[in-house]
Amino acid sequence: MTEVRGNVIVGQSGGPTAVINSSLAGVFKTAKDRGARKVYGMLHGIQGLLQERYVDLEEHIKSDLDIELLKRTPSAYLGSCRFKLPEICDDREIYDKIFSILDKLEVEYFFYIGGNDSMDTIKKLSDYSLLNGSKIRFMGVPKTIDNDLAATDHTPGYGSAAKYIGAITKEVIRDGLVYDQQNVTILEIMGRNAGWLTGAAALAKGEDCEGPDMLFLPEVTFDVDSFMKKVEELHKKKASVVVAVSEGVKLADGRYVCELTDGIEFVDAFGHKQLTGTARFLAEKINREVGCKTRAIEFNSLQRCASHIVSRVDITEAFQVGGAAVKEAFEGETGKMIILKRVSDDPYVCVTDIYDVHKVANVEKKVPREWINEAGDYVTEEFVNYIRPLIQAELTPIMTDGLPRHLYYTDVEKKQG
Amino acid sequence: MTEVRGNVIVGQSGGPTAVINSSLAGVFKTAKDRGARKVYGMLHGIQGLLQERYVDLEEHIKSDLDIELLKRTPSAYLGSCRFKLPEICDDREIYDKIFSILDKLEVEYFFYIGGNDSMDTIKKLSDYSLLNGSKIRFMGVPKTIDNDLAATDHTPGYGSAAKYIGAITKEVIRDGLVYDQQNVTILEIMGRNAGWLTGAAALAKGEDCEGPDMLFLPEVTFDVDSFMKKVEELHKKKASVVVAVSEGVKLADGRYVCELTDGIEFVDAFGHKQLTGTARFLAEKINREVGCKTRAIEFNSLQRCASHIVSRVDITEAFQVGGAAVKEAFEGETGKMIILKRVSDDPYVCVTDIYDVHKVANVEKKVPREWINEAGDYVTEEFVNYIRPLIQAELTPIMTDGLPRHLYYTDVEKKQG
Repeated sequence: MTEVRGNVIVGQSGGPTAVINSSLAGVFKTAKDRGARKVYGMLHGIQGLLQERYVDLEEHIKSDLDIELLKRTPSAYLGSCRFKLPEICDDREIYDKIFSILDKLEVEYFFYIGGNDSMDTIKKLSDYSLLNGSKIRFMGVPKTIDNDLAATDHTPGYGSAAKYIGAITKEVIRDGLVYDQQNVTILEIMGRNAGWLTGAAALAKGEDCEGPDMLFLPEVTFDVDSFMKKVEELHKKKASVVVAVSEGVKLADGRYVCELTDGIEFVDAFGHKQLTGTARFLAEKINREVGCKTRAIEFNSLQRCASHIVSRVDITEAFQVGGAAVKEAFEGETGKMIILKRVSDDPYVCVTDIYDVHKVANVEKKVPREWINEAGDYVTEEFVNYIRPLIQAELTPIMTDGLPRHLYYTDVEKKQG
Repeated sequence: MTEVRGNVIVGQSGGPTAVINSSLAGVFKTAKDRGARKVYGMLHGIQGLLQERYVDLEEHIKSDLDIELLKRTPSAYLGSCRFKLPEICDDREIYDKIFSILDKLEVEYFFYIGGNDSMDTIKKLSDYSLLNGSKIRFMGVPKTIDNDLAATDHTPGYGSAAKYIGAITKEVIRDGLVYDQQNVTILEIMGRNAGWLTGAAALAKGEDCEGPDMLFLPEVTFDVDSFMKKVEELHKKKASVVVAVSEGVKLADGRYVCELTDGIEFVDAFGHKQLTGTARFLAEKINREVGCKTRAIEFNSLQRCASHIVSRVDITEAFQVGGAAVKEAFEGETGKMIILKRVSDDPYVCVTDIYDVHKVANVEKKVPREWINEAGDYVTEEFVNYIRPLIQAELTPIMTDGLPRHLYYTDVEKKQG
């Protein structure tokens, strides 16, 4: 008989991915299978928990079919937040409040699915639990399309975003060849400081596709003049030129390229200035100065929510890291993040392990300079070999009436107190 | 034994769709199966033919596997053009040139896969063949994501674009709910004069999704003030508001909404001014005047090239109209376009028929006003019932190394003369 455990709570934080709910499914199912009494879900992460907004997940995930649907549901099922806890020394009250809510719910295990900032939350909560003698165990479950988390070979969420980018880049390249007229297409890809996603456009290159002509990652300083010169040269040689740029490419003076536009300033759902307009700016400049037809295509939010095409490797690993976090916490670990360790490239084998969250939080992993070519306009074969295993195989959406089915959050919100 | 037939030539014209190559496959396979000696493909449609650019398709489509890949390859495999033939009375020379090229190739059957403008080409060529006593038969094969062709229940290409729009609209709606912060998202959907694609966003509405809040089609005059008022009202009631607008929405004075921006003027691959910026303009206005977070998402070219998610009904019908065109031409028809006739809604049954191309060319079919609600901000149930059968089922991409495989055009161009 499975040992009966105390209660579990799980939250999602930061930008969503196409597979973040697979990690939630992994936490939920493993916790239930291993005897957790109740599995609570925080609504909108720690921010929602502070307002005592949470649900009993069993009221929402009622069957194995629901678990399969949850794995295939885009965006954070429980809602997310961008909320950084203060330093413990600056505001102990907020910590006391969190722990009193957790105690009231008889929570013994706390899981947080997120990126850098979210691991900071795990770090602080586990530190505080040492200070106040709490027995609650805190574990981080990695996720981010940006792949910028330290210590782990890669982050769940990245593989599916890379697969999506590779697939649509192939389609857009093909689309650019349709008319017998020279044209330049600029693709704008997410990534504020790290070029993992932009580099993934190189996946398009293969036996049936030339791939994009150039890739510009934020790791290399962007020079507008040399960019224009390169485009002009390519334009002389090729009918259709396709260039991918990261939204985060920066000039030598530190300004983002998108800041060169006099355009509209967008603010995203959590108040950050959106780095949008880089492709538009460059496409317009090419149109004016090179004199050819141009297109600017923003890959936009679909990069983090296109659950209609996901990598099976990714969605499986996302589930696994959720499950591993539960297993480790139940065995006594706390203040750790689950990481993925690549044991072998070919055949691809990856296992989970644990890592001290103090060494992960707030550290940003960038693309190594040696994985970008010397000219700074493409990634190396090593880079592509690194991503390729992460985009393998598919998990077919469950289609109803012609469209992918998701698990609908029914908003049965429980407020206590 | 199959009767040996003369040579066939086929071309693709106008904007591509995700399934236009399925029609090409239908023409090729049916023509070969029914005894055609050679099947030529014009490169870049009639414009390429005038430069004697064509290929022997058997050198490129070598196996049944190639046919399956071709069906799943986005964009026009043979390349496309935007080229309108002059009136016969204005320039007989160009017609003589075309017919002399066709005669040299011993072409007896001419197929053109396209929309309104392309049917104009079939009309003029078949008219001219009557004048000059040519025995060549000319048949039109319908395609367009815009669904604006007359006489046919719908056009191949529309179902897949609608399925894509429905699927990603669901994902984006879900994504908008992720943060506990009010936001408005404006989706920009293709359709210069007809709202068939924008209306397809309503497909997102179902048991697991509320669907978009409002839809604005070009068939109804767009009023910026009343739009802003409606958004403001929704914003008061809902955390996340999602509105889809057609790129072609127009003000009462006839100007496109996107012309209100002082933004960049884009020119597309064939020199038309792109109707881009509507969503950006509206999102910025909402951000400024309503004061909430906004996002503008352009669904962009993916609408016409997302072959990674297609409707099986659509891709099958695309193949069928190609095959039907061959069958009809081989049986003696000329100057006709293949149409789809819906025999029954439930169960959905659609058959092919022929229609006089003179009655089709240059006629634009819009969304009937009664399929848009009185307020002009959503489509009716009838509209959704009309599209729903067209998006059913999938044709799985053939995946290699993690990405959809396409048939690569190897550029074995044959030039004669």
